[in-house]
Amino acid sequence: MTSASHPHPTLCVEVPLGDRSYNINIGTDQIDSFGQMLLATLPDLSHALLIADAAVEDPWAKRLTDSLAERSNQHGTPIRVSYRSVPSGETSKSVSQLSDIWQWMLDSSTDRSSVLIAVGGGVIGDLAGFAAASYTRGIRFIQVPTTLLAMVDSSVGGKTGINLPTSKNMVGAFWQPSLVMIDTDVLSTLPDRAYISGLAEVIKYGVIDDAAFFDWLDANAAKLVARDDEAVRHAIAESCRSKSRVVGEDERETSGRRAILNYGHTFAHAIEATAGYGELLHGEAVAIGMQMAANMAVDLGMCEASLLSRQTALLRACGLPTTFAAADVDAMLPVMQRDKKVSHGKLRFILPERIGSVGLVGDIDPAAVIRAIKSCR
Amino acid sequence: MTSASHPHPTLCVEVPLGDRSYNINIGTDQIDSFGQMLLATLPDLSHALLIADAAVEDPWAKRLTDSLAERSNQHGTPIRVSYRSVPSGETSKSVSQLSDIWQWMLDSSTDRSSVLIAVGGGVIGDLAGFAAASYTRGIRFIQVPTTLLAMVDSSVGGKTGINLPTSKNMVGAFWQPSLVMIDTDVLSTLPDRAYISGLAEVIKYGVIDDAAFFDWLDANAAKLVARDDEAVRHAIAESCRSKSRVVGEDERETSGRRAILNYGHTFAHAIEATAGYGELLHGEAVAIGMQMAANMAVDLGMCEASLLSRQTALLRACGLPTTFAAADVDAMLPVMQRDKKVSHGKLRFILPERIGSVGLVGDIDPAAVIRAIKSCR
Repeated sequence: MTSASHPHPTLCVEVPLGDRSYNINIGTDQIDSFGQMLLATLPDLSHALLIADAAVEDPWAKRLTDSLAERSNQHGTPIRVSYRSVPSGETSKSVSQLSDIWQWMLDSSTDRSSVLIAVGGGVIGDLAGFAAASYTRGIRFIQVPTTLLAMVDSSVGGKTGINLPTSKNMVGAFWQPSLVMIDTDVLSTLPDRAYISGLAEVIKYGVIDDAAFFDWLDANAAKLVARDDEAVRHAIAESCRSKSRVVGEDERETSGRRAILNYGHTFAHAIEATAGYGELLHGEAVAIGMQMAANMAVDLGMCEASLLSRQTALLRACGLPTTFAAADVDAMLPVMQRDKKVSHGKLRFILPERIGSVGLVGDIDPAAVIRAIKSCR
Repeated sequence: MTSASHPHPTLCVEVPLGDRSYNINIGTDQIDSFGQMLLATLPDLSHALLIADAAVEDPWAKRLTDSLAERSNQHGTPIRVSYRSVPSGETSKSVSQLSDIWQWMLDSSTDRSSVLIAVGGGVIGDLAGFAAASYTRGIRFIQVPTTLLAMVDSSVGGKTGINLPTSKNMVGAFWQPSLVMIDTDVLSTLPDRAYISGLAEVIKYGVIDDAAFFDWLDANAAKLVARDDEAVRHAIAESCRSKSRVVGEDERETSGRRAILNYGHTFAHAIEATAGYGELLHGEAVAIGMQMAANMAVDLGMCEASLLSRQTALLRACGLPTTFAAADVDAMLPVMQRDKKVSHGKLRFILPERIGSVGLVGDIDPAAVIRAIKSCR
């Protein structure tokens, strides 16, 4: 699968975080030269740990491992590779899986000069990232996202963590990777529904941050759905640029700026928590949540109705759901009131003002929330 | 127990860490005005969680809780207080205890505006500190150390963490407190052996960083052993000043500077790991470890023999052990070779050059390590 020529240049997006800055490389045909790329970033590397989602073990994690195991570092020392696969799915983001990983890292003679590489979607990135953040109080970490959702969202920005039995992402760390390596070749094994789900987060960046990108998405929706290589890479790069800008301005969610990334997500989390596990993919819930938020913004007179219709049309053109008939208002509202981002029990939402611009609106009347949910049933 | 007048002024040491800077307040008679002091630092506080060592629940944690529960914040909102005691001893620094604390924090409706207060020695500070660092990716944290060892060492500098079954402090975070509140009144319930053990770390600062402080300790050893109030506070403040300086220069152990705080500790950890749990207190092992390190420095021609004799005399004057007849050379050496601070299996030690100055010496011959251990049997 290696090739001598690269018809498509690798795109590079920098996440600007001072001494924690890092690059996101977006390209194709990089898997088998991963070892080389890694040594360019970490020339002293002598021990790499790979944690991979079991679903991408063959062929992606295996090829990455091979590409590492055949390299030596700047001192001529061969890279020692430790490998572990983790079952697919949200239930792996548990205390017991994390605890097993810590013990495995210890048994693998991991020290602060080791690097941990996450190969998978958001579950693996979050879990492995927190293991990297906490083992000996922090070792270096690399993200190799294998889902579109992880490429445009979870692998960028340094949020890591696990779930508690009754609450998602309650425990974790802000821990930035040293590198994010995105190879769109890996999307070839990603099922259609999961791929389309990832497009919801892509469209989100157009709405919250970048009107020109929204226009481009409008014009290129069909290409994206058909997984046209160049369009996909462009969409990923623009998404990463938006996310990097926001994260660079508010790394630890202290100024409130980073909250704009949660557009549609307060609704989405409530949908996911009440609809039954596995009913909807995360991106599908985000698409519906964005529709609820846009409906609310129109309802409250914050934006024009044309925003909602343009968003609806783009989501549909990408094959994403825009309504959810089973939305359970009575169950969703209490979940939203317990949300981590709620301040003293008051409901706050990221709402669009126009395409490319959103604002945080506090102290929303629960009746408006109920209307927004019902508008999408 | 409250008093209207403060015969001894509160000493204040700043830990200089940019936007993570904080104060260490060292005083007396502060327990019952803790709520007031806390609100001066965190005026918006509305929820405080106390985690206390079961051994200091009565009276210290109870009085701290009372002093909090009777206050209101700047908005007139009463402070809600959640309380949890943790069994004394190193075994509480476990994954299962941490996991229970996370769930308790969730059940207590903890959010990012809450503050977690650790009341106890190093075990509680390390455990609660990591819980604070990781819950919702980090909430505010206050240290109220109740042992001399925690006052002069573990409560300052932001190292938090837990143990894995076969290895101490393998998992954690660098997470700085917002405030360290040291009230020497609490030492009145600290047993003599634990108090004396804490003096080993105090003496360490004289050897590694501050010759004038070493001279002062030499002249005031009897007062310290007798727990003279003013002498104790001065010794704590000088120790915190030394530690703050070092931590301010190398918060995350990246430059190597912070390693000087490990003077005597590579030996001490090996003694603790091989002597059988509970045989020696940590400070006692550190005293013996400092003797082994000083012996090694003299042996290698790094410093004059008078340094060793002055250190020996001061440790003895404080009632600390300077030899350990049961030291098991064959068991200790492999433990030291697995130490977290070992680089690629090579033995490195912090060794004294003169009183007030130490250096990191790499690639030490195991034979010299064996001689150093045997010199203290």
